[in-house]
Amino acid sequence: MRSVVNIISIIDNNSPFPLENGKELNQVELAFTTYGKLNSEGTNAVLVCHALSGDSHVAGELDLTDELISRAPFYKAMKNKQPGWWDNLIGAGKPLDTEKYFVICSNILGSCYGSTGPSSINPETGKVYAMNFPQVTVRDIVRSQKMLLDKLGVKKLKTVIGGSLGGMQALEWSIIYPELVESIIPIATSAKHSAWAIGFNHIGRSAIMNDPDWKNGNYNGTKVSGLSIARMIGMISYRTQPSFEERFGRERLNNSDYYDDKNLFQSENYLNYQGEKLVNRFDPNSYIIISRILDLHDVSYNRGSVEEVLASIKAAALCIGIDTDILYPPEEQRYIRQHISNSVYTEIKSRHGHDGFLIEFDQMREIILNFLNKL
Amino acid sequence: MRSVVNIISIIDNNSPFPLENGKELNQVELAFTTYGKLNSEGTNAVLVCHALSGDSHVAGELDLTDELISRAPFYKAMKNKQPGWWDNLIGAGKPLDTEKYFVICSNILGSCYGSTGPSSINPETGKVYAMNFPQVTVRDIVRSQKMLLDKLGVKKLKTVIGGSLGGMQALEWSIIYPELVESIIPIATSAKHSAWAIGFNHIGRSAIMNDPDWKNGNYNGTKVSGLSIARMIGMISYRTQPSFEERFGRERLNNSDYYDDKNLFQSENYLNYQGEKLVNRFDPNSYIIISRILDLHDVSYNRGSVEEVLASIKAAALCIGIDTDILYPPEEQRYIRQHISNSVYTEIKSRHGHDGFLIEFDQMREIILNFLNKL
Repeated sequence: MRSVVNIISIIDNNSPFPLENGKELNQVELAFTTYGKLNSEGTNAVLVCHALSGDSHVAGELDLTDELISRAPFYKAMKNKQPGWWDNLIGAGKPLDTEKYFVICSNILGSCYGSTGPSSINPETGKVYAMNFPQVTVRDIVRSQKMLLDKLGVKKLKTVIGGSLGGMQALEWSIIYPELVESIIPIATSAKHSAWAIGFNHIGRSAIMNDPDWKNGNYNGTKVSGLSIARMIGMISYRTQPSFEERFGRERLNNSDYYDDKNLFQSENYLNYQGEKLVNRFDPNSYIIISRILDLHDVSYNRGSVEEVLASIKAAALCIGIDTDILYPPEEQRYIRQHISNSVYTEIKSRHGHDGFLIEFDQMREIILNFLNKL
Repeated sequence: MRSVVNIISIIDNNSPFPLENGKELNQVELAFTTYGKLNSEGTNAVLVCHALSGDSHVAGELDLTDELISRAPFYKAMKNKQPGWWDNLIGAGKPLDTEKYFVICSNILGSCYGSTGPSSINPETGKVYAMNFPQVTVRDIVRSQKMLLDKLGVKKLKTVIGGSLGGMQALEWSIIYPELVESIIPIATSAKHSAWAIGFNHIGRSAIMNDPDWKNGNYNGTKVSGLSIARMIGMISYRTQPSFEERFGRERLNNSDYYDDKNLFQSENYLNYQGEKLVNRFDPNSYIIISRILDLHDVSYNRGSVEEVLASIKAAALCIGIDTDILYPPEEQRYIRQHISNSVYTEIKSRHGHDGFLIEFDQMREIILNFLNKL
């Protein structure tokens, strides 16, 4: 299955896109990828929402063209034909069956994979936005996705599914567009971002902003090591003590000096590798904006109590938690389940913590299939 | 109870102090504080071992003099008469009863509160060691403490007690000096530092080393913000998602702008405060050296298997775990208990994670008292 990233403007007649914070964007492009075919009624669509550092290439083999790289340069760190991040769940005969559903994934507003974000040109200055990009929110992301779906002719969403930030989008979809959304599958997420999760993001942002190479956002292609530190902090929160222990233990790098090597242990090497990888493929300004999108997430903001807002959700909900997730613990998933009337809760068993939603495909496959078949 | 910090040389006749890594130190001073009186046989001593950023002022009211500040400048961030970090456990009528025991706590080798470390003058160059300070280990710390205890006339240790890095010292004491140690109380610690805990330390060190103000260790009084980031990373690992949620939730700073403030939430403010506080009272080079001391800790290193080494311990052991500790989980404490023959395990219930050993005094008081009374 080919995975083609399209980039289009979602704005018509130059009418600006109003943001939750009162500002507006005069140009909004979204990058998106679709799989399968939309039926003539436009009712067989499934929206997949990605997490912090994700993109629209969620399944199949990436069709990496020079044109794509010229429009979304961060794609140059990808490989042609590399599989999508949820390829195990999406495709013919898979739970999000592309023979049955029209599956859409769009890169979020504020990201750097083709959608308008801090690395886009600000039409008012002709220069890259950098930190002048306005602070967008989950609600802004959802409203921009709605405009994209309108352009694609989608009339109903069979389900909206995503983990982490993706799950926050699923919740907001069911709140902002109740008439469109038949069901949601929020995974390893929260109704409002917790103090501890905010803390991790805060430290990551501080590491970027503390790096003089970031130049207050105007880093202009210079490598920003602070982003590597932010990523390492993230990675450690996405896993667990036992999963690191099982994988790395006290294994050391070859020929290392026990007392004096700066990078002595394999666990350090792994974190460095993950940090470097993100530095080469992500905009530090997008990292700052998107991590703040997570922190600002609170379904109750300007609406009433969290309980009331969740109780107002009409869509059927499959809430999925991961037993070892320390960042978005199962309690938060059970809390969501408890307050949405038409909802069920299932827990994935995993050694891997939060990242389980990118690893435990066997369990997720069955859980998701069961839920969708009963709709 | 007054708490007087003494600083003395532990080296006699200019014989150098050999380190585990093969290097040696030509001058070694240790700062220490004692409470109560040593009996004439020298057998009523209790050694308290501190954690990463601790110091010898463990109980009573700090006797902060100009002379102390001139010899150990980092003490200037302290307040005169401020209570010690385990004042709840040490004193007349407390579990470490100063009417009964001679309680000693010494600042560890590599630290910056009066003991020889990276902020000390290197006698060979006449300049501050900075990152030329050799990488010391828990075993070096323990051997230096032994030389101090010899000078004080201590012949037996009723118990060696400590949390985190302090617990590692307790374990090594029972391995290196079995004939001296009647019992140990290792709390929230490990027999060998885990991959995940190494990961947290690695990120903290990276944040310091990535800060150009650190100048490869020669920061010379400049504020090193990287240490603040390292501390914030540490703080988050010492607590838990539920404890942060209970304390801060989504509470915001007064008059903050929801979308645009860099420091919007109280949880961010708290982390900033903790980070700043350490920057003003700790040597970033000591932070690097001591966090590496933790990582290098492995009772089995150059000795055989962990199980064999623990099985060789003759001292009675009270192993204390904290149910919510994610950094040194209860499993690690039960593992230690399982392999030391004369040992018991007790678990503290806490919302606070690893930091529980600095918070849950009511539970610790009873557990420790029961154990010591039965010796």
